[in-house]
Amino acid sequence: MITTVTANLALDVTYRLDRLTPDRVHRARSVRQRAGGKGVNVARVLRRLGYETRVVGLVGGATGEAIRADLDAAGLPHELVEIGGESRRTVALVSDDGQATLINEPGPGVADREWAELGEVVRRVGGRSAAVVFAGSLPPGVADDGYARLIARVGARGVPTVLDTSGAALRRGVAARPDVVKPNAEELAELTGAVGPREGARVLRDLGAGSAVVSLGGAGLLAVTDAGSWRAEPSRQVSGNPTGAGDAVVAALAGGLVTRAPWPDRLREAVAASAAAVAAPVAGDLDEQHYHRERGAARVRALAGQEESHGTGSHG
Amino acid sequence: MITTVTANLALDVTYRLDRLTPDRVHRARSVRQRAGGKGVNVARVLRRLGYETRVVGLVGGATGEAIRADLDAAGLPHELVEIGGESRRTVALVSDDGQATLINEPGPGVADREWAELGEVVRRVGGRSAAVVFAGSLPPGVADDGYARLIARVGARGVPTVLDTSGAALRRGVAARPDVVKPNAEELAELTGAVGPREGARVLRDLGAGSAVVSLGGAGLLAVTDAGSWRAEPSRQVSGNPTGAGDAVVAALAGGLVTRAPWPDRLREAVAASAAAVAAPVAGDLDEQHYHRERGAARVRALAGQEESHGTGSHG
Repeated sequence: MITTVTANLALDVTYRLDRLTPDRVHRARSVRQRAGGKGVNVARVLRRLGYETRVVGLVGGATGEAIRADLDAAGLPHELVEIGGESRRTVALVSDDGQATLINEPGPGVADREWAELGEVVRRVGGRSAAVVFAGSLPPGVADDGYARLIARVGARGVPTVLDTSGAALRRGVAARPDVVKPNAEELAELTGAVGPREGARVLRDLGAGSAVVSLGGAGLLAVTDAGSWRAEPSRQVSGNPTGAGDAVVAALAGGLVTRAPWPDRLREAVAASAAAVAAPVAGDLDEQHYHRERGAARVRALAGQEESHGTGSHG
Repeated sequence: MITTVTANLALDVTYRLDRLTPDRVHRARSVRQRAGGKGVNVARVLRRLGYETRVVGLVGGATGEAIRADLDAAGLPHELVEIGGESRRTVALVSDDGQATLINEPGPGVADREWAELGEVVRRVGGRSAAVVFAGSLPPGVADDGYARLIARVGARGVPTVLDTSGAALRRGVAARPDVVKPNAEELAELTGAVGPREGARVLRDLGAGSAVVSLGGAGLLAVTDAGSWRAEPSRQVSGNPTGAGDAVVAALAGGLVTRAPWPDRLREAVAASAAAVAAPVAGDLDEQHYHRERGAARVRALAGQEESHGTGSHG
């Protein structure tokens, strides 16, 4: 079982419109809502890849009820901590001209007691997991070392971890020595000020991350690990919905921590899942055809230079 | 007690943004949600005008729960019929440049059994009311004569009624002889094909309406009644949020059915409530200062011509 922890669970509400015109009244053609937040999308992809999953996170209010109900309806097992605040929604206005306009709610504040309760669930459920994924932003009111503390709890029990967040939560989080971090190139540049993703990945490893896998959008992935460094690229460009691509990469990397497959195989799997996510209409889904093609066709090449190793040797 | 019946109750969700840019990601500065639908706004204004109210309507799902909770929090008494579908939301994106972009969900379908249950509540609660207001659109699945049947039930018990809807629901509704109908000029022109609001108002009376009060936006009201015809105008233009202006007019007209005040006084009250609603930031609120000023300052003048009377003489 792989556990995904999403501190900031959301209800993703998608409206279909003919066209969005500011300052006008629109009649939505359809409305669709489902549980969201990065960790939920990671869990959806993990299940498609054949793993058992457990969704862990914080929910509250009527929106929290709707999140819980959708996880049940989707058959995604969960252990959720009830909070006093109202869970956040994201609103997507998708129009026939291909535009997607997003409105993100700030999300509820989380009390210390509620965060401590989440820590207990992470310790208990994470302790009997094959890997634990921490994904998404921290909610308002949670200290920047929120993920770091959770990672430390799980890491102390020898369970491998993946961290996918940004900003201060990432900077503080890597200090707890997660096995894999997966920033995208912009998040990485913003955090490290590094001139390129490879240098940025090295900075994250110096700060404590075992391996750093940087997503480069349609150009694929860059991985810097104890075992070497690689560039992985899809065989062809896929047009579609990029929203869930990063979550699909995280799912594949978490799976790799469980299978202990060689890094080139993990990266091929990650590129395939990412391309298949872009080709699927909704975040968390995979397009089977793209997935199977890219698993065979994605290119992975080793990068020269042994200077990547930071010598601790403890990370997988 | 004045009962307001809102078949299509809603949860009004308002996001504050810096600026809405299609195809971009936005972080909402704030989110506010409250029970909505025309009848709820009418009830809010009625309460401000000093009347006891009862909100009657259909709610369902988690959104229905949120509507119910907000009515409770607002201290608005209600008798709601639970339906199998999920209540609709309206989403308003309000930006600092003064733009308001609205997205309306289509709303849940309503089963015959659920509509019949609403009819029972309307009969029971409406029968002991001083007046009943029917406001807003009919939900999907309800026949065009939905309001007509409800009005007939209440009218049979001698309780006066106000109807504020549009299209086929209005055309069929007037046949049940509501005491007052309040279309706006566009709804009226669309329905009757009449060249002007006065002619359109006469058509509605010919179809069965006791009195027709046409809202002309910032220009005020036109009333055609058994007792004569009037134009009522605010003393000055008010800038602000016009969303709840029509609901404020309906509230004042319903109050007039209870007090039996002379029509010019009712219209002055309606113009004052409308201006005060425009000056208030949220639909259902009234700006006290504007309200009191316009009650004294609004101009009402009788229109020549006795041809308005359609001779049945039974309506107030």
